[in-house]
Amino acid sequence: MIKAAEERAAKYAAILNDLRAKRPLVHHITNYVTVNDCANVTLAIGASPIMADAAEEAGDIAAISSSLVLNMGTLNSRTLESMIIAGRSANVNGVPVIFDPVGAGASKLRNDAAARVLSEVRIGVLRGNISEIRFIGGIGAGAKGVDADAEDANADAAEIALSLARRLKCVVAITGAIDAVSDGERTAGIENGRPAMSGITGTGCMCSSLVGSFCGTRGDSFDETVAAILSMGIAGEIAYEKTGNALGSFRAAIIDAISRLDAQTLVRRAKLYEA
Amino acid sequence: MIKAAEERAAKYAAILNDLRAKRPLVHHITNYVTVNDCANVTLAIGASPIMADAAEEAGDIAAISSSLVLNMGTLNSRTLESMIIAGRSANVNGVPVIFDPVGAGASKLRNDAAARVLSEVRIGVLRGNISEIRFIGGIGAGAKGVDADAEDANADAAEIALSLARRLKCVVAITGAIDAVSDGERTAGIENGRPAMSGITGTGCMCSSLVGSFCGTRGDSFDETVAAILSMGIAGEIAYEKTGNALGSFRAAIIDAISRLDAQTLVRRAKLYEA
Amino acid sequence: MIKAAEERAAKYAAILNDLRAKRPLVHHITNYVTVNDCANVTLAIGASPIMADAAEEAGDIAAISSSLVLNMGTLNSRTLESMIIAGRSANVNGVPVIFDPVGAGASKLRNDAAARVLSEVRIGVLRGNISEIRFIGGIGAGAKGVDADAEDANADAAEIALSLARRLKCVVAITGAIDAVSDGERTAGIENGRPAMSGITGTGCMCSSLVGSFCGTRGDSFDETVAAILSMGIAGEIAYEKTGNALGSFRAAIIDAISRLDAQTLVRRAKLYEA
Repeated sequence: MIKAAEERAAKYAAILNDLRAKRPLVHHITNYVTVNDCANVTLAIGASPIMADAAEEAGDIAAISSSLVLNMGTLNSRTLESMIIAGRSANVNGVPVIFDPVGAGASKLRNDAAARVLSEVRIGVLRGNISEIRFIGGIGAGAKGVDADAEDANADAAEIALSLARRLKCVVAITGAIDAVSDGERTAGIENGRPAMSGITGTGCMCSSLVGSFCGTRGDSFDETVAAILSMGIAGEIAYEKTGNALGSFRAAIIDAISRLDAQTLVRRAKLYEA
Repeated sequence: MIKAAEERAAKYAAILNDLRAKRPLVHHITNYVTVNDCANVTLAIGASPIMADAAEEAGDIAAISSSLVLNMGTLNSRTLESMIIAGRSANVNGVPVIFDPVGAGASKLRNDAAARVLSEVRIGVLRGNISEIRFIGGIGAGAKGVDADAEDANADAAEIALSLARRLKCVVAITGAIDAVSDGERTAGIENGRPAMSGITGTGCMCSSLVGSFCGTRGDSFDETVAAILSMGIAGEIAYEKTGNALGSFRAAIIDAISRLDAQTLVRRAKLYEA
Repeated sequence: MIKAAEERAAKYAAILNDLRAKRPLVHHITNYVTVNDCANVTLAIGASPIMADAAEEAGDIAAISSSLVLNMGTLNSRTLESMIIAGRSANVNGVPVIFDPVGAGASKLRNDAAARVLSEVRIGVLRGNISEIRFIGGIGAGAKGVDADAEDANADAAEIALSLARRLKCVVAITGAIDAVSDGERTAGIENGRPAMSGITGTGCMCSSLVGSFCGTRGDSFDETVAAILSMGIAGEIAYEKTGNALGSFRAAIIDAISRLDAQTLVRRAKLYEA
C-alpha cells in the first residue's frame, strides 16, 4: 500500500512544484476570524493571496486572479453580494471557484446563501466538513454551529462526495478523520491529519485556501484538490509531532510545516487511496 | 492562605471539568482585531465558538447557543443592531449574556452603545478593565483609548464591582493587576496574571470569551466567571514563565497554557480571596 | 561605513526611547487581514493601538490620538468614508497621518480611494511597496494584487521617493529589498530586513503601524519614519536568525524582536545611508 501510495503521490508532488513556479494569485472573500491564517497559508505554500470583499472591486479582482475562494464564515448581506459578483466574474474569465460553505445548516441566512451561491455561480470545488456537505446535499445534518457534528462523522464520506459531485458537477471534498475527494468519476480517500486540527480555528478555512492555491496552477481540479488536502493533512502531522496539543504553538507550526513542505515529504507521508 | 485558596479553588476546577464534558457553543459578536484569539481560546478551554454578526442570523444563532459574548471592540451601527437582536434572543431563550464594553469612555458612539445594550438586554456578566467599568458605573474615568488608565488602576476594584453588581443586578468582573468579581452578594479577588498580559492585544477579549465558555456550563454565573478569570490569569503566568516578555511567543503560549490547563494546575496555582 | 552608520543611528535610538516614555495612542483604520499583527506590533514597540473604523467615532478618536494610520487593505465604501472623516479630524488637530495605499493599482476602487485620500487629507507619511508607490506617483506599475511586482523592484526607490516627496509635500517611504525614505530634502536608504518578510502577510502593514507609533512621538516625521523602518528591518533580521523560513514561527518572532528591541541593538545593527 505505502509503496503504491508513493507512486500515486508523486503526481501531487509535481503539482506542488508547479504551484511554486507559477505563484498563482488567489482572490479570497472570506471571514474575519481566520483570514490571517488563510493569507499566511497561501503565502506559505507559494501562492499570493488577495483579500478583497468590496462589491466595487470584487469582479475586477476575480478577473485577474488565478482562482477565487468564497468562504461563508462571517457572512453578511454585503459580502454575499460581493461573492456573487466575484463568482460570476470568475466564471466568465475561466477562473476556478472554490466554495467553503462554513456553518451551512446553522442558520437560515447561511442556508439561503449557500443555495444562492450554488445556483448563481458555477463552482469548481466544494469543500466542507461532513455536516456542512450533508446539509448542502440535502441528506440530513445535525450541525451545531460551525464544527462538524459527531454523529455525522460516521457517515461514509467517500460515498457522499461521489454522489454529490455527480449531482453538482463539481469536485466535492469532505475533510475530517478521513478526507474524501470526488469529481463524480474519480474518488480519493486521504488519511493524513490529526484530531488536534479541529482544536484550533481555521484548519478548514486554511484547507480551502490551499485548494484555491493549487487550483490556480494547472486546471485539473480533482488532482489539485487532492494535492491541497494531502498538504494540509501532512502539515498537521508534522506540526503535531513538534507541539502536541499545545494549541497556540500548533497553529504556528502548521504554517511552518506548509512553508517547508517539499515534494519528497509529500510523497513519503501521503496516505492516499484512490478508487 | 494558599491552603484555604486550594480548597476554594477545587470548586472552580470542577466547573472546568464540566465545561469540557459539555462543550458549550459560545456565540460571539466581537471585534475583528482579536477575534481569532477569542475563537482559539474558546476551543482551547474546551468549548465551541461561533462568530456570527449578521442581523439576519444573530437571533437564530443566539437561540441555539449555550452563551452569548457581546464585545464592542470594533463596533459599528450594523453590528450594534445585531448585538441587540442577539441579546434579546438570548434573554428569551435563557442563554446567559456576557458584555465586554471595550473602549467605553473613549467615544460617544461607544458610550451610547454601552448604554443601549445595558438598557435593552439583560446582561449576565459585565467584564471590563477598571477604566471601562468606572465609566459604565458613572464614577469618572480617564480612559485613553482601549487600554486602562494608570490612575484608574489605583481605585478599589472590589468595591466598585460590588456596588455596580448591586445596581445592575448582574455579575461584574474587573480585570487588572488584581481582578475583582462580584454578584452583589459574593465578591472574589484574584491575584493571578502578569503585567505582560497588557502588552499584547486581546487578553481582555480572551478573558471575556473564557467567561462565555464557562457560563455556558452550569448556570451560576458568579462561580463560572471566577473560574474563567482564574484560568486566564494562571495561563498568563504559565506562558510568561516560558517566554518572558517576548510578546509574540507569549501570545501563542497563553493559548498553549489554556489548552493544557487541568483542574489540578488550577487548584495549585489559584490566588483567590473571597469575601 | 558601519562606524558612521552607528553614529547616525544613535539619533533614531533616542527616538525609540522617547516613544516608550510617551506611549503614543495610535488610531488605525485598517484591514481585517493583518489588524491583529498591527495592534500587537504597536504594543510591542511601546505605543497604544486603537482600532476604530465607524464613521460615528472616527473623528472623535483621531482627535485624541497621537497619530493616525490609514491602511487600504480591505477597503470598502463605509471604511473609506471613515478614513476621510478621521483624516480631516487629524489634520484639524495637528495629528500626523500615515497612509498605506495597499493594493493601489490593483482595482479602480483602490485607485480612486487613494486619489481621494491624497486630495482630501493632508498626509504626513506615505508608505508602500514599490509597485504601490509607482502607481501613486503615476510612473507606471505592474501590480499583481497586493504584493510588489518583481520588475518594479529594480526601479531606483530612492529617486522615486525623493521626487514624489517633493510633489506630495510629505515623507515618502518605499519598503523592499532596500528601503528608501525621503521628505524632499533629506533621503535615507536602509538595507536591513530579510526576503522572508514578504513570505508572511502583514510586514508592510506592521511597518506602517510602526511609522504611526514613531510619528506620534516628537514631530519630525522624516527621522521618525526612518527609525520605524530601521526597527522593522532589524526585527526581521533577528527573527529570521531564530526561525529561518519557518514562516509561522517567523511571524511571532518578529513581534518578539520588536518587544525586545533596545536602542543599543538598533544602533549596532542599523545599515543606514543618508543623502
